[in-house]
Amino acid sequence: MKIIIDAMGGDNAPAEIVKGAVEAQKEFGVDIILVGIEEKVRECLAEYGGAGNSHISVVNATEVVDMHDEPSMACRRKKDSSMTVGLNLLSKAEGDAFISAGSTGALLTGATLIVKRIRGIRRACFCPVIPNGDKGVVLIDCGANVDCTSEYLLQFAYMGSFYASAISGVENPRVGLLNNGSEDTKGTDLCKETHALLREAHEEGRINFIGNIEGGDVFTGKVDVIVTDGFTGNILMKSIEGTAKFLMKKIKSVMLCSMKNKLAALVIKKDIGAIKSLLDPNEVGGTPFLGITKPVIKAHGSSNARAIRSAVMQAISIVENDISGKIADNIEHMKLRSE
Amino acid sequence: MKIIIDAMGGDNAPAEIVKGAVEAQKEFGVDIILVGIEEKVRECLAEYGGAGNSHISVVNATEVVDMHDEPSMACRRKKDSSMTVGLNLLSKAEGDAFISAGSTGALLTGATLIVKRIRGIRRACFCPVIPNGDKGVVLIDCGANVDCTSEYLLQFAYMGSFYASAISGVENPRVGLLNNGSEDTKGTDLCKETHALLREAHEEGRINFIGNIEGGDVFTGKVDVIVTDGFTGNILMKSIEGTAKFLMKKIKSVMLCSMKNKLAALVIKKDIGAIKSLLDPNEVGGTPFLGITKPVIKAHGSSNARAIRSAVMQAISIVENDISGKIADNIEHMKLRSE
Repeated sequence: MKIIIDAMGGDNAPAEIVKGAVEAQKEFGVDIILVGIEEKVRECLAEYGGAGNSHISVVNATEVVDMHDEPSMACRRKKDSSMTVGLNLLSKAEGDAFISAGSTGALLTGATLIVKRIRGIRRACFCPVIPNGDKGVVLIDCGANVDCTSEYLLQFAYMGSFYASAISGVENPRVGLLNNGSEDTKGTDLCKETHALLREAHEEGRINFIGNIEGGDVFTGKVDVIVTDGFTGNILMKSIEGTAKFLMKKIKSVMLCSMKNKLAALVIKKDIGAIKSLLDPNEVGGTPFLGITKPVIKAHGSSNARAIRSAVMQAISIVENDISGKIADNIEHMKLRSE
Repeated sequence: MKIIIDAMGGDNAPAEIVKGAVEAQKEFGVDIILVGIEEKVRECLAEYGGAGNSHISVVNATEVVDMHDEPSMACRRKKDSSMTVGLNLLSKAEGDAFISAGSTGALLTGATLIVKRIRGIRRACFCPVIPNGDKGVVLIDCGANVDCTSEYLLQFAYMGSFYASAISGVENPRVGLLNNGSEDTKGTDLCKETHALLREAHEEGRINFIGNIEGGDVFTGKVDVIVTDGFTGNILMKSIEGTAKFLMKKIKSVMLCSMKNKLAALVIKKDIGAIKSLLDPNEVGGTPFLGITKPVIKAHGSSNARAIRSAVMQAISIVENDISGKIADNIEHMKLRSE
């Protein structure tokens, strides 16, 4: 297996990206192609002990997509950027998956443009796993598609199910529709229409739909896949992140506010740290765009080496489980009956 | 000032409701009317030292609205319920505000039906204060109106501003529009239309609009009023509650997982408890329905005496600041220009 990595994307590129790639190669034994400004990438490789590694190759790309580039135009305009070159390598089957910590919008547009959507899929979507102290919950969509139809959401439900099976090993993932109440009659028109489609798919045995779920159900352990439009998914994820950050900050300040608290904190510090890392995006690694013909994985913009290593692990799982293939094979179930 | 309280609403009625009412009367010196099954209410009054209090009166109501009643019909069907009788007392100016811990849906429908919307207000809305360790953030709307127009949201922004001024004393509350990114161009069509209306109101000096804010901004201290539709507001609030509950449970389990942790926990327990109560809805008390001609306040269904006391304190502040009057006085600004 060969994983293509954008060495220039993200806040800590190229150093942490290259470092993580070297670590992942050693740990998982995969081949890696690093795409970026060759001189800089080779410098980092030398620094992190990857210089002589025959499983790591470098492909030169002279440009870098940055946060000032208009997302929808970045890959079109910067044809020799590490992102565009990497996506082209994936498209030409020079590797099995592409990972980038660069701009989410640019990567989504680039993936759609260069690697293409799976035939029949209406919209590619962004599909993070929200850590919940257990196997995590797949949130689909999260930010990619602000305006959705019930058919998009039906497709998200299928794609999210295949993905949850692959990454968490759940055989028949429980799919819930994010709503403002658990009763069947709740929600916007979009929710009600989607509820009916998911119910139908469930009754035909194609999906394990458990009904409407609420914002707090990420943590109640009753759902594996949360289906929603990209707007609501973004609000959900950001509010969870914000709340967790706020509370952990408060806990930290309690642990430092007096000498006696500092002493007590020494004892429980490690266990409290474990809670923090429960929710650490670096442990989760990357987030795939589902609905693209081949695996394209977005790593967090602030990814460190550990996060890149996690993203490679995730890419391997997505490739091995052939998520893209499963989506393509099931495309007939994922369309509206009326077509 | 006279506060009418539904003695029969909520999980802990009538005991905790009456107890909280007695405490609030003593602490704040207001007059209180308790509405409910008279015999039961008087028993509780005797138990909690309110029997001889001349500032507390009881109005008999033989029925109780419960969770099995269809919300839209409850007040119509149970005309002698404590909720319906209480709303009628408010409507006839027998008191200045009405508090109930009963069904949210029934109370909203009852308030609209009996106490009526302010002339020109398109929709009454539910407007909780989310605790954030500081003055809290007003979330408007939260669950009452699933489908909204930009005009509803413009009205929510004004109503939320008056309310935030009243409860937190902020002079020119910062209003943010909940969106999936902070850039002006982000969001659904509804977001973009509302953004334009709020920008216009800001430029005319009628509102302090700070632009789009994200799900995590409840805790960043940059916004006082979060404007959104009732669907998204519900997702935001539930996810905050769920995350906080999950983390506090994890912290608790760390503090109990070993003898040494238990000993350390004894030292910091009180300070950790203070963080928990930061987010405790019982401290916030009630949530008003704004847009109704007189103050109608929903107390949490699980309200204890402390929560009822907090709700009375909040009712007093809403009456003193004449929120309903301010909304009515500003109704011309709250309409679309095209009308």
